[in-house]
Amino acid sequence: MLSINKKKYLKSLNIKKNRLSENKILIEGLRIIEEAMNAKIKFDHIWLSQKYDNGTHKISDFIKKINNNNISFTFEKDKDMESISNTKNSQGLLGLIDTSHFFNLNLNNFSDKIIVLDQISDPGNLGTIIRTCAWFGIKSIILTQSSADIFNPKCLRAGMGGHFHINDCIYLSEDEIIEFFNSQKHTLYCATMDGESIYNINNNNKWALILGSEAHGVNKKLLLGNKISIPKRGKIESLNVSIASGIIINQLISGNKN
Amino acid sequence: MLSINKKKYLKSLNIKKNRLSENKILIEGLRIIEEAMNAKIKFDHIWLSQKYDNGTHKISDFIKKINNNNISFTFEKDKDMESISNTKNSQGLLGLIDTSHFFNLNLNNFSDKIIVLDQISDPGNLGTIIRTCAWFGIKSIILTQSSADIFNPKCLRAGMGGHFHINDCIYLSEDEIIEFFNSQKHTLYCATMDGESIYNINNNNKWALILGSEAHGVNKKLLLGNKISIPKRGKIESLNVSIASGIIINQLISGNKN
Repeated sequence: MLSINKKKYLKSLNIKKNRLSENKILIEGLRIIEEAMNAKIKFDHIWLSQKYDNGTHKISDFIKKINNNNISFTFEKDKDMESISNTKNSQGLLGLIDTSHFFNLNLNNFSDKIIVLDQISDPGNLGTIIRTCAWFGIKSIILTQSSADIFNPKCLRAGMGGHFHINDCIYLSEDEIIEFFNSQKHTLYCATMDGESIYNINNNNKWALILGSEAHGVNKKLLLGNKISIPKRGKIESLNVSIASGIIINQLISGNKN
Repeated sequence: MLSINKKKYLKSLNIKKNRLSENKILIEGLRIIEEAMNAKIKFDHIWLSQKYDNGTHKISDFIKKINNNNISFTFEKDKDMESISNTKNSQGLLGLIDTSHFFNLNLNNFSDKIIVLDQISDPGNLGTIIRTCAWFGIKSIILTQSSADIFNPKCLRAGMGGHFHINDCIYLSEDEIIEFFNSQKHTLYCATMDGESIYNINNNNKWALILGSEAHGVNKKLLLGNKISIPKRGKIESLNVSIASGIIINQLISGNKN
């Protein structure tokens, strides 16, 4: 049974400063918890709604997987689960994980393909970009300080478990980013509204892609390397930033050339 | 000044059946209203929050544009604007538009490039896909009946004005979709998890792309034409449906081939 103090503690993780001080996050829902188990993330505990214990809602494969991963779990009252949940229509599945050894924060280990996210303040867009990186096997992400928290519950939800497939993730200042790339051999690409067509890029080697917010674009200081754009055929002003990211990442990864 | 009845009427448009019976929708925010004006959509009226009238918030270019388009507008009390608004942090800019002549509903006029959306039930994803279509100049969309309402406020918000650049849009049953394409010369592509790589496609001619929901994929009945997939390089189970749409549409439009 969830004690009042435990509930209070778990709820407190909805707030960024508590997540940071505790190095813990709560993840919600079957798919995200499954992705974390697939990626061998260490769980402190999993809580399941009582409705999964009485046979009316079957998730036996999921429970088998929890057992196979040697994760402790308990069934809890629906109203307790709802009080902790961060979503409106909670599935009644919550996992507590430790973030202290979650990402590699040593820039020396960053890989050949890096995504740099500048001022991506919408946690939904950020999570969707992380999910896209995970799909394309990109394992290194650098964020500017003004970007959203990658462990924001909305970001985790949109990430759909993508977070657990990222190896390296670090928040840096603009100056630190510039310094880092000065010491590296990555070809830099910067997404802007007036760059060269992405269809002219053909690079299967070491690259980093810098993406800015929809409203402000990439910060002037970070307009580094080759400016690139997705050619527009219609009349609308802009694309959603996570869609633009997906299209450019696909282009860089596939090495297509028109 | 907004009368009680007028406020009641405008609020009622948050509900789908009222939007349908009245053939009216409310659109919110500077960028969406601007896109509608750019696309020469007919407005009944625009309401602006009083804060834009006293000089503390400057939107003079926007007001000039409203005048140039001969659209009637009034300034209203902040609390009246908030009571009608569908968003939490309303910009205080609302426009009423007529949807009865909004889209061409005659299938004979559908263009060479068509997007078919099956069971896209999340209005945010639907809006983002519409925005992507608008960017790539795709003007014809077919939706199955179980898809979200394109005029859902969340869909309009995510669409960012993309709706106003679509010419043809129609909701059809699976059978009607099959019948329509039987009479057409479009090459059909259907996004699945186990199709041929999108990098092998090279088609700049007449095509239609069928996309299903993340949870259920494309309905069996609509698994028509060539099954195609975005090659996965990472370990995560799936991509967000609007990201997948963006990547595949870009591939088809650009005619890239690996």
